[in-house]
Amino acid sequence: MAGELSGGDLSRLRQLNALAVIKALQGGPSLTLTEVAKRTGLSRASTEDVVRELLHKGWVAEAGATAGGVGRPARRYRFRAEAGRVLGIDIGGHKIRAVVADLDGAVLHSARVPVTPEMGRVERLEAVDRAAAECLEGAGLSGGDVWASGVGTTGLVDGAGRVMLSEALPEWTGVDLAAHVRRMAPGPVLVENDSKLAALAECWRGVARYAKDMVFLLAGLRTGAGLVIDGKLHRGFANASGEIGALPVLGWIRAQEHLSAASGEAGDVFAAARAGDKAAAAAVRRYVKDLALGASALVLALDPQMVVIGGGFSRSADVLIEPLRRELDRWCIRTPEVRMSALGGEGVVLGAVRLALDDVEERVLDGRTPLVSHL
Amino acid sequence: MAGELSGGDLSRLRQLNALAVIKALQGGPSLTLTEVAKRTGLSRASTEDVVRELLHKGWVAEAGATAGGVGRPARRYRFRAEAGRVLGIDIGGHKIRAVVADLDGAVLHSARVPVTPEMGRVERLEAVDRAAAECLEGAGLSGGDVWASGVGTTGLVDGAGRVMLSEALPEWTGVDLAAHVRRMAPGPVLVENDSKLAALAECWRGVARYAKDMVFLLAGLRTGAGLVIDGKLHRGFANASGEIGALPVLGWIRAQEHLSAASGEAGDVFAAARAGDKAAAAAVRRYVKDLALGASALVLALDPQMVVIGGGFSRSADVLIEPLRRELDRWCIRTPEVRMSALGGEGVVLGAVRLALDDVEERVLDGRTPLVSHL
Repeated sequence: MAGELSGGDLSRLRQLNALAVIKALQGGPSLTLTEVAKRTGLSRASTEDVVRELLHKGWVAEAGATAGGVGRPARRYRFRAEAGRVLGIDIGGHKIRAVVADLDGAVLHSARVPVTPEMGRVERLEAVDRAAAECLEGAGLSGGDVWASGVGTTGLVDGAGRVMLSEALPEWTGVDLAAHVRRMAPGPVLVENDSKLAALAECWRGVARYAKDMVFLLAGLRTGAGLVIDGKLHRGFANASGEIGALPVLGWIRAQEHLSAASGEAGDVFAAARAGDKAAAAAVRRYVKDLALGASALVLALDPQMVVIGGGFSRSADVLIEPLRRELDRWCIRTPEVRMSALGGEGVVLGAVRLALDDVEERVLDGRTPLVSHL
Repeated sequence: MAGELSGGDLSRLRQLNALAVIKALQGGPSLTLTEVAKRTGLSRASTEDVVRELLHKGWVAEAGATAGGVGRPARRYRFRAEAGRVLGIDIGGHKIRAVVADLDGAVLHSARVPVTPEMGRVERLEAVDRAAAECLEGAGLSGGDVWASGVGTTGLVDGAGRVMLSEALPEWTGVDLAAHVRRMAPGPVLVENDSKLAALAECWRGVARYAKDMVFLLAGLRTGAGLVIDGKLHRGFANASGEIGALPVLGWIRAQEHLSAASGEAGDVFAAARAGDKAAAAAVRRYVKDLALGASALVLALDPQMVVIGGGFSRSADVLIEPLRRELDRWCIRTPEVRMSALGGEGVVLGAVRLALDDVEERVLDGRTPLVSHL
C-alpha cells in the first residue's frame, strides 16, 4: 500500500510516464506495448494508459502490425516525429546556418548564408533572417509552424536570450537574439553560447553519447569550451561556465596566434604541417601546447570521462590528436579518452535543434503538450 | 487516471516518500501530519501511511502533542535521531579526528589524536584506531553499533576506499582504508578525499547551504579543492576532480612556499602580516596571488555561485579574504560570492559524518532500512 495518491502526485507521475514513453519511441523503430513497457520499466497497464493518451494527443501513431510467432500480430506504435517542427540557427563569424528539424531531430531543410567577422549588428541580423526565411520556405513552413527555436551564438548569453558579452563580433554585445528571432518564429526561442550547444550535440548525436561527464573543446579561429556534467549541460550560475580562456596563463588567448603567424589561414598551416613543412609543424606544436594547457585545467578540475575536440580544426585530427594526447598526459593525473568530433561544422546547429527539442519535451513534462493535429 | 501501477512502481514511490518524510523531520522540531504533508508535497493520506510505516520501523516517534487553537491537539511526530549511530574520521597530516554522531548528524562524542606528516603507514593507522576506539568508548558504543562510517583522507581515493595516490603522506599510497576501518566498525565504510568532504560539509552545515554550485578551497599547509555541482559533490570519472594543483602555471604547487619562506609556521606569517610586518604582508600577498590563480581557473571553468575558503588558513580570513577577492576580480569574468568557512578544523570530519549518513539514507531509499529497536 502506498496510501492514496493526491491529484498532484498522480498528474506529475503521468507526465513523467508520458515522457518516458516518448523517449522510448523517439528516433527508433515502432514498438509493441510489451516492448514499450520493457524499455520504460512501467507496468503493462500504465503503458497502455499512457500510449492511449499520447495517441489521443497526436504524439504517437499506430504503425503497421507485424506478424511473427503464433496468434494475432501485436499492434505497434511509433512516435509521430512529423507532429511538430523546430528551428535551429547557428550564428558564427563566417556563416549563418539554419535548419528545420522534426521532433526526432531529423533535419528536413537547411540554409547557409556567408557573413564576415567584421560585419556589424544590423547586417548580421539580416543574414540571420535570410537564413531562417530560406530554410522555412524550403520546408514549406511559416514561422507559426515552429514549435520552438534554438539559437547558438559566440559570446556569453544571459537566461533571457540576450548576448551579454561578445569579444569576437563587433556590436554583438547587448543584442536581444530571442526577441529578434521571435519576430519571425513566434514560439519559444532559446539562445545559448555556441561551445555549449556543440557540447550538447556531441552528447546527443556525436561521439560522447555514452559519456556522463565530458569536456568539449571548440577548436577553431576561437577556442572555447562546453561542459557536460552528470549527463547535463553545465551552464553555471550566470551561464558563464567554460570561460577558462580568460586566464592568460592557460594559453587560449594566444593559441590561435601561433597558427596565423605561420600562415594567412589556419587550414593552410595544418595542410603544410601534414606535408612536412617544418615551420608549420612547429606552429601546430605551439598551438597544441597552448590548447592543452587550458584543456588540462578543465580535465584536472572535472576529471571527465572524455574530451571531445570540435570546431573547424577538428577536421585536422590527424595532425592534432596525438600531440594533444601527449600534452594532456604531461599535465593531467588521469588523461581521459580524447576524441575528435564527427559532427564537423554541424555541431552548433544540431545543438540548437536539441535545445529547441528540450523545450518541447519540457512542455510534455509540464502537461502543457499541444493537442497536435492528426495529419 | 494514471493507469494501474505495478508493484515496482509502487515500492519505489513509497521509498521516495519515506525519504521525503524523514528529510522533513530530520534535524528539526516535531511536526503534525498536516505540517509534514505541506513540507513534502505529499497528500494527507500518503503522509499518514508513510508516517505509520516509519513509526513501525522505529525511524519516527510520537512527540508530545501541542494544544493550540480549538479542538483536540494534533499529534506531533519527530525523527528518531537516536535510532542509529554513525562514525566520522578525519585523517590529516597533523591530527586524526574521530566523532560519533546520531542520525541527525549531531556529534555525541569526539576524539583527537596528534600525528606528524612524517609518520609511516602503520603508526598512522594505529592512531586512527586509537581515535576511533576512544570515541566509541566515550559514547558507550561498540563497533557493531555503528551503522556506517565515513573517512576523510588526504590524497586520491578510489571507489572501494583505497588511497590511490598521496603526495603529502609517506607510505599512504595504496592503503586500504575501508578494509582497515571495517575491522573496528563492521558496517559500510565510505572513504573520500578530505577537500571533497569539507565541501560536502559546507553545503550541509556551513556557509554554502543555499548554493547549488560551489567551489570549495582547502587552504592550509596543502591547497586542495572540492566541487559541488547542481547540489551534488562532483567526484569525477575516477574520483580525481578538483586536482587543479597539479598544473604548475596555476600556482598551487608553490603557493605554500611563500609563507614558509617568510616564517617557520604559517600561522605566524598571518599574525605578523596582521601586526603590520611588511615582509610577512608581502609573503601573504604572494600566497594569495597563487591561490587565486588556481581558484580563478575553477571559477572560470564552472561559474559557481560561491567560493568557500576552508582549511587551517580560513582562521585568517581578515588578512586573506579581501586580497583574494581583488585577485579573483582581476581574472574572472564574474567573481562569485567569496566566503570563509565557519566550520574551521571540523569541516572534514563533519563531511565524513555526512557521507556515512548519505549511505544510511540510500538504504532507506533501497528499502533496506533496518528495523530499529524502540528504545
